Amino acid sequence: MKHWLATPARVPDAAAAEAATLRQATLTKPPGSLGRLESLAVQLAALQGRERPRVDVVWIAVFAGDHGVAVEGVSAFPQVVTGEMLRNFALGGAAISVLARALNATLDVVSLGTVNDPGDVAGVRREIIAPSTANIAEGPAMTDDQLDAALITGVRSVERAVAADAQVFIGGDMGIGNTAVASALACALLGESPDVLVGAGTGLDQAGIARKAATIERALRANAAAITPLECLRCLGGFEIAALTGAFIAAAQHGMPVLVDGFITSVAALAAVALRPDVRPWLMFAHRSQERGHARVLAALGGEPLLDLQLRLGEASGAALAVPLLRLACTLHGSMATFAEAGVSEA
Amino acid sequence: MKHWLATPARVPDAAAAEAATLRQATLTKPPGSLGRLESLAVQLAALQGRERPRVDVVWIAVFAGDHGVAVEGVSAFPQVVTGEMLRNFALGGAAISVLARALNATLDVVSLGTVNDPGDVAGVRREIIAPSTANIAEGPAMTDDQLDAALITGVRSVERAVAADAQVFIGGDMGIGNTAVASALACALLGESPDVLVGAGTGLDQAGIARKAATIERALRANAAAITPLECLRCLGGFEIAALTGAFIAAAQHGMPVLVDGFITSVAALAAVALRPDVRPWLMFAHRSQERGHARVLAALGGEPLLDLQLRLGEASGAALAVPLLRLACTLHGSMATFAEAGVSEA
Repeated sequence: MKHWLATPARVPDAAAAEAATLRQATLTKPPGSLGRLESLAVQLAALQGRERPRVDVVWIAVFAGDHGVAVEGVSAFPQVVTGEMLRNFALGGAAISVLARALNATLDVVSLGTVNDPGDVAGVRREIIAPSTANIAEGPAMTDDQLDAALITGVRSVERAVAADAQVFIGGDMGIGNTAVASALACALLGESPDVLVGAGTGLDQAGIARKAATIERALRANAAAITPLECLRCLGGFEIAALTGAFIAAAQHGMPVLVDGFITSVAALAAVALRPDVRPWLMFAHRSQERGHARVLAALGGEPLLDLQLRLGEASGAALAVPLLRLACTLHGSMATFAEAGVSEA
Repeated sequence: MKHWLATPARVPDAAAAEAATLRQATLTKPPGSLGRLESLAVQLAALQGRERPRVDVVWIAVFAGDHGVAVEGVSAFPQVVTGEMLRNFALGGAAISVLARALNATLDVVSLGTVNDPGDVAGVRREIIAPSTANIAEGPAMTDDQLDAALITGVRSVERAVAADAQVFIGGDMGIGNTAVASALACALLGESPDVLVGAGTGLDQAGIARKAATIERALRANAAAITPLECLRCLGGFEIAALTGAFIAAAQHGMPVLVDGFITSVAALAAVALRPDVRPWLMFAHRSQERGHARVLAALGGEPLLDLQLRLGEASGAALAVPLLRLACTLHGSMATFAEAGVSEA
């Protein structure tokens, strides 16, 4: 069922990057003075295969799913919230709903299964796998079929984004307990101890963080047989994390740039790159999350986020906040006058 | 002539800040999970005196002027560029022109005098003081009348912004040689050595930076009699830096929030706060510049910039890039659903 994973990622366009680099050098500003916005424009040129990239059409997919490990008390919020937030996404009251509207971006909300199931809700796509994964503290999160289904859910969202001519793909997560799961998965993928990766999530106190770390220790022991990235994802992932992993791989295969959000999505990106290293050039990193393990995961990916605003919300909210920077980088790159056009003297 | 300096700054509205803080706690997200955007919304609430602030109408003033010290070879660019860039601002090809258009912000370009004077150009306001300041390496930059005129030019731009119902004031700078002047002024205001504050500006090499530092040493000796902030500004400032100083003070007096750009504008803010400490609450800091002395000036002001994108352009470009964050902070604050409205369970 996973034959699609064998398809290589597109190769970024070196000629477009070269043309964009040359153009940057002609614009009326001291060379390099727009810093990260210059390299961002060049990277987007390489990924979109044109000298002057655009980020007008943005696709934001938010994947929601519940986690069996929530019974261990690893979140500050009750599990019913995952399903409640699905309604809030659809009704437009969540942070990502407000941001998508303000940015004129498409919001594709996909439910993979919640314990508190809101049923049919306009604006929520139901691709239900199960009400929840199994408790990773006691064994694998998913069956192989469930992992397949979750990955493909991400692939399908990218296919919809491609059909909508999206120029950047953003993925987001919702799922009570998912920082615990993402931390466990990152530990397995990186060979790290929970002490390095476990943080406060949505707002645990010190005792809660210690309980979460102990739960992750149990999960790593219970799933010690998981060695390959795919087995790690099946045993220590979640439906929404696997969907994000599938989406990031499919985006790279389709040649669509990805703007990665925070901790959960970065762990999904880590799994995607472990499965297919050629996904890496397609990833841009939006922000440095306040969640403790994010720095370690970013370091493993060589990711340098654009923003550092002490965010720790998920839902793709941090990536959405970085969209104006991508847009303005493209607009500056495409619309500034050259020294010759403006009759301005060079250094 | 400087009696207007005696007018106190408005006092931020503590009740509006309190109401905004209470509102933040009810929105459907873990408390604090929107990080800097939450404190930004509360700060804007205090400054605008309403629970739900707005940053729809943005005023960007760019002040241009030449510097006598340019003859010392302290810039990577020739002095004719100041006048050439005035045309580029007006014709829409400069970075700040492109950004102002993309942000639907008003761009108020004011020339205070350039050696290479483009004459009447549509879109450039002429408030000419002189073709250039005097060379600070040999004596005071300005006469007292010139300082008065430059300060008032900034005040007038704020008055236009108030008349246009602007919700945030941004100031920018253009002037070949102005990192040298701003570094000298910051040294005088902070009692620091040039070694700590001098950087590459628009792109000096190591020899150029050493020459600039030596020039600033001479300037500090030549103007050693300048003790008060106003005398420091007159002797070691520039027309555009004084205009920015006047503008920041006037903005605080009118109760208009200021978004400070990079190094030059932060030094102008330092002068403004030295003259009137009650200006400080009205300042938000947009970005951490790559110019070396910015960190020291920000530390003196207790400024925590929103962005760190390795920018070093000036022209208000870094502040413009932060405008979407202010807008989205306001939109999230004003438009997200509360837990009660959305029927979402709390922690």
